[in-house]
Amino acid sequence: MFDRPLQVVILLYPGIEILDFAGPYEVFSVATRIALRDGLSAHAPFIVRTAAASRELLTARYDLRVQPDAQFDDELPCDVLIVPGGVIDQPMNDPDTLAWVRRMAMTTGLLTSVCSGALILAKAGLLEGQSVTTHWADIQELRESYPDLDVQENVPYVDAGSLVTSAGISAGIDMSLHLVARLLGADAARTTARQMQYEWQDMPG
Amino acid sequence: MFDRPLQVVILLYPGIEILDFAGPYEVFSVATRIALRDGLSAHAPFIVRTAAASRELLTARYDLRVQPDAQFDDELPCDVLIVPGGVIDQPMNDPDTLAWVRRMAMTTGLLTSVCSGALILAKAGLLEGQSVTTHWADIQELRESYPDLDVQENVPYVDAGSLVTSAGISAGIDMSLHLVARLLGADAARTTARQMQYEWQDMPG
Repeated sequence: MFDRPLQVVILLYPGIEILDFAGPYEVFSVATRIALRDGLSAHAPFIVRTAAASRELLTARYDLRVQPDAQFDDELPCDVLIVPGGVIDQPMNDPDTLAWVRRMAMTTGLLTSVCSGALILAKAGLLEGQSVTTHWADIQELRESYPDLDVQENVPYVDAGSLVTSAGISAGIDMSLHLVARLLGADAARTTARQMQYEWQDMPG
Repeated sequence: MFDRPLQVVILLYPGIEILDFAGPYEVFSVATRIALRDGLSAHAPFIVRTAAASRELLTARYDLRVQPDAQFDDELPCDVLIVPGGVIDQPMNDPDTLAWVRRMAMTTGLLTSVCSGALILAKAGLLEGQSVTTHWADIQELRESYPDLDVQENVPYVDAGSLVTSAGISAGIDMSLHLVARLLGADAARTTARQMQYEWQDMPG
């Protein structure tokens, strides 16, 4: 158990897939509520925040409008960085987003992606030589563009220690439950999944 | 197949559980994208909109801020009404929300709830004598408060025709995939689940 809340920061951008960020947001928030309710932790185990280029309202994929909590030039402590996927043209072509991800990655203990968020991490130069995964529809592009990567398929996520990448959309929920198990214990993760009525089994190993 | 887009309206309110609305929002949106991509439908099969008391930003549970598309006094066509759960004190004690749900229910073809959203429908007087379900933690309260209901447990959702209620949080995804199967066909639902990398099997019957 850690002696202070872990800061979970979720990148938002125009075109982001809704469930890619909402799934992890829900998991870490429910885990926090459950841990406090059940006395698993004396303090909130996680604090979840969203960050984007600006704090203005932004339009996610399918037109949901969300307001980020923080913007790139804020001083933002971060223990777990989550980079979701979706329509990634904006972040892939925005030097500020790539620079922010690189800057956050230098200090975060745990760098993670959901779905095509892995392509953002790759473009930011943060995956070199690593074992990773992504949405099944993006496996080929990731392999062809970054032949040095060990791109795994047919797994919900790849836990490479300080780097954890997940497969598509819902797999961000599976990955987040796995991280709750890693950081807060298997019981906390199982109770969180049960509270969410999500069918989940942690991967062995 | 229907000859025009079906209007899906999702109720939002302060305290709403994020995944309760984001899950169904994602399912109907992905189903629409897939149907157009694969030529299953000549037009968008679903149009997804959110509605709340006002179009101002509102704070969902765990502090995510979302801007609704419409407000209660808008003229809003609705074929599928989704009433999510969460911290339901605000809608349960707000006559305007209950009146809006009743008004929408009079014209919608399909009235649905996620999680403790069933308690909102019950309070609005829309469940009388029906077979329903809700989050496992709310089963007892629903039974005790509304003894005329046939409250089912250990099922992801109960399809009672024009009324479909689902269990907790993630079960809104299962219910929405079931509705996609019902409205657009089993192949469309399976392809949507696969796109979302969501483990899903439609219930028999």
